[in-house]
Amino acid sequence: MIVKEINHHMDGNDISLAVIKRLPRYYRYLEELLDNGVERISSGDLSVRMNVTASQIRQDLNNFGGFGQQGYGYNVAYLHDEIARILGIDHTHSIIIVGAGNLGKAIANYANFEKRGFVVRGMFDSNPSVVGSECRGSKVMPMEMMKDFIRDNGIEILALTIPKTNANEVARIAVEAGIRGIWNFAHMDLTVPDNVVVENVHLSESLMTLSYNISRQK
Amino acid sequence: MIVKEINHHMDGNDISLAVIKRLPRYYRYLEELLDNGVERISSGDLSVRMNVTASQIRQDLNNFGGFGQQGYGYNVAYLHDEIARILGIDHTHSIIIVGAGNLGKAIANYANFEKRGFVVRGMFDSNPSVVGSECRGSKVMPMEMMKDFIRDNGIEILALTIPKTNANEVARIAVEAGIRGIWNFAHMDLTVPDNVVVENVHLSESLMTLSYNISRQK
Repeated sequence: MIVKEINHHMDGNDISLAVIKRLPRYYRYLEELLDNGVERISSGDLSVRMNVTASQIRQDLNNFGGFGQQGYGYNVAYLHDEIARILGIDHTHSIIIVGAGNLGKAIANYANFEKRGFVVRGMFDSNPSVVGSECRGSKVMPMEMMKDFIRDNGIEILALTIPKTNANEVARIAVEAGIRGIWNFAHMDLTVPDNVVVENVHLSESLMTLSYNISRQK
Repeated sequence: MIVKEINHHMDGNDISLAVIKRLPRYYRYLEELLDNGVERISSGDLSVRMNVTASQIRQDLNNFGGFGQQGYGYNVAYLHDEIARILGIDHTHSIIIVGAGNLGKAIANYANFEKRGFVVRGMFDSNPSVVGSECRGSKVMPMEMMKDFIRDNGIEILALTIPKTNANEVARIAVEAGIRGIWNFAHMDLTVPDNVVVENVHLSESLMTLSYNISRQK
């Protein structure tokens, strides 16, 4: 996965990319604690659950200041909400999915995304035999409608679940229409302007990493 | 994504984890060059395509020794095959998929994986209404059959495309049956013995990272 190096400024402080990359995992654990009705947790307990040292946790969370108190632990709901705010998931994001194949449908149907404020507003496909079919109660639209749809509905995120052919062309049109971020499952690196964020999920690279690590174990 | 720190020994040399993580991307570009009939490439040309400095490329590939020659460039087929060998994708790997939902189907149908030697040998699901349905010409099997199937067919990799409920239990049974690696899409961290490799694809964490980076751009 390619990570863009961005300068992170947070309330005047710099937060390292390494910390930022760990935040979603903290969020996932805090969400689980909340779901289980846990109100407070010590860095020690969180450390056992997350398999990270307690001092790492204290260091990481100190970046955001004042969430924990000595001998008292962290207020789970407060920490959960603060991290949500930092991650920008304290408000909703509109998504469209381009590519209504199995992967596109898997994403459209994944309820957890919606729970975290990512709302799928439409799906598009270039295949005429797929256009018009239903997915989660709404009809798959033809590609020609994408540009206006992004503009008219203020869509922020494009989930790109098509093969590499046309991926850059679709990205180009979406950028023209004002898209802010692309969640890229296409097996290629996209070329976009600097103000558009790309998050790559290269599944075959992930599978190769797995294969490599298995080979090393032999 | 959690990366296990493993000591990498390669022909007696240590290769850094950072280099290893870049190899699948090199492989992807070399594969593309091969498909386009390109026989040789200079580090300069590769650097433009991959948007990495030429010196980074030379440094990375020097780890494996002797692939390039000054003023001559890299032999694409040779480099491609060497990286395949290092990644352990010069031979086939047997996979089973547990979870025959959209995500499981997307993986089963993804032809590129097979091209790289990852062969899906069977799919399993706990839902009786899904068991027996066809996917890529073979029938989805009930979970009860998984353990013997892994054993009898020497399955190496388990792709886990189920929600977090039961994920650890399925992993435990698969490990007992001799699985070597788990490609984990379940939204949780698995607990497995040290000799079993886990590669996590946490899609919601990836989406949160995208959201974070969009927030920072504002």
